[in-house]
Amino acid sequence: MDSRPIGVFDSGLGGLTAVRELTALLPGEDIIYFGDTGRVPYGGRSRETIIQYARQDVAFLRSFDLKAIVIACGTVSSTAMEVLERENPIPIIGVVEPSAQAAAQASRNGVIGLIGTQATIRTGAYLRRILALRPDARLIDVPCPLLVPLVENGRFRPGDIVVETVVGEYLSPIKAAGADTLVLGCTHYPLLQEVISREMGPGVTLINSGAQGAQAVLRRLTALDALNEPIRRGICRYFVSDSIGSFVSLASIFLGHDVTGEVAQVDITRY
Amino acid sequence: MDSRPIGVFDSGLGGLTAVRELTALLPGEDIIYFGDTGRVPYGGRSRETIIQYARQDVAFLRSFDLKAIVIACGTVSSTAMEVLERENPIPIIGVVEPSAQAAAQASRNGVIGLIGTQATIRTGAYLRRILALRPDARLIDVPCPLLVPLVENGRFRPGDIVVETVVGEYLSPIKAAGADTLVLGCTHYPLLQEVISREMGPGVTLINSGAQGAQAVLRRLTALDALNEPIRRGICRYFVSDSIGSFVSLASIFLGHDVTGEVAQVDITRY
Repeated sequence: MDSRPIGVFDSGLGGLTAVRELTALLPGEDIIYFGDTGRVPYGGRSRETIIQYARQDVAFLRSFDLKAIVIACGTVSSTAMEVLERENPIPIIGVVEPSAQAAAQASRNGVIGLIGTQATIRTGAYLRRILALRPDARLIDVPCPLLVPLVENGRFRPGDIVVETVVGEYLSPIKAAGADTLVLGCTHYPLLQEVISREMGPGVTLINSGAQGAQAVLRRLTALDALNEPIRRGICRYFVSDSIGSFVSLASIFLGHDVTGEVAQVDITRY
Repeated sequence: MDSRPIGVFDSGLGGLTAVRELTALLPGEDIIYFGDTGRVPYGGRSRETIIQYARQDVAFLRSFDLKAIVIACGTVSSTAMEVLERENPIPIIGVVEPSAQAAAQASRNGVIGLIGTQATIRTGAYLRRILALRPDARLIDVPCPLLVPLVENGRFRPGDIVVETVVGEYLSPIKAAGADTLVLGCTHYPLLQEVISREMGPGVTLINSGAQGAQAVLRRLTALDALNEPIRRGICRYFVSDSIGSFVSLASIFLGHDVTGEVAQVDITRY
């Protein structure tokens, strides 16, 4: 038993879809969330900049006494996982490994699609993990730089010609290759699940990387005997690097409910 | 005569459209450009964060011996112009004042449209300047958060249903109000000029804020007797806060020609 909170971070708000899964799966756990809203998005930045930002995000979270840290961001998980694990003596759970495992298991024909940010696709992290688990697999990966801005501007619903056109273009090579499994390699994308699912058609399994990350946290904390006793509902505290004004309204879209816990601003460049 | 360079900065690459106008108008001037590519975009961030970033941008530029600084960014010009002028004993030229002047002069019916980032519209800076110059004017201002990501992903050409739909939605209340003049209040938007012009129809004057900023530089330096002698073609040096790799390819879209000068990376958080 370990009653310390779990730290969760993302470049911005997308990681809240992972928090949503985490609180559904582990309702007794306290969570400290950091969203780097002053420097979002990470997905178009260089490897060096992403690593620098991720180090500061983890340093801030470690100013709390945590039992584990979740990288609720496809870009950081793909780019900085090894660096962060090497530098921090605390369990760190990313979204790449559990999503790759789920995709390798789910696919029948071995043709797997992956959508993510430019940085995520550039690293080849998903490709390496999927091929290690399933050498016969064929991965079709497509960088989707417009999906994060579209989602953050509320354009994720079916019937919107803008989002349907953009999603259709991005998914076209994945559909053409006959993929039966598609990894949503960015924690913003679960909001697009309905549009993506309609575009891919029935029979294609969508892998939600935030949900897979939450499952991995459950497995890891169970193995470490570090789950909290579910006596009371866990508390969630939120920290952001830009002002908190716009956070609260946008956050509810990703969380699926209103923000109830404390929200505070932090100067992330000090970490 | 003053042979020192002109400093120009923007949150990212949009300011290069102003550099393009500046080098056409003042080919003998040397330019030091800073683009905050490690923290772009500014347009959705809070006033406090934009001011903090803008202060660092100016502090970096002032590590050179400059004769003037151009804020080639609608968001920073609207949000931080007064703060930056107060804190820095060097001529600072923004895009709001010259664009507001041009719009107030160009409009026949006094109905003026303005498109810009969320931060630009929130400040009301354009509204105040236009009403000061022309109290009978009516301003219809629309925040356009998706235009910067669309342009930066190369979606600015006529015939693209995505950009045409988004632009059509944003411009709809401006068209409905019968505006005869439209301020492109962000230095990314000149790339959308053709799409916007077709949507607005003939007879509507588009005000390019980067070009107006360049005209203001000419007027200011002439008044100060601080133009360079046009003996040789000016040199442009570029500094960015993210890695230089992606800069060079994207920059040519905004400049209208290849980047020929020096490009270097700078750690902007040190300033």
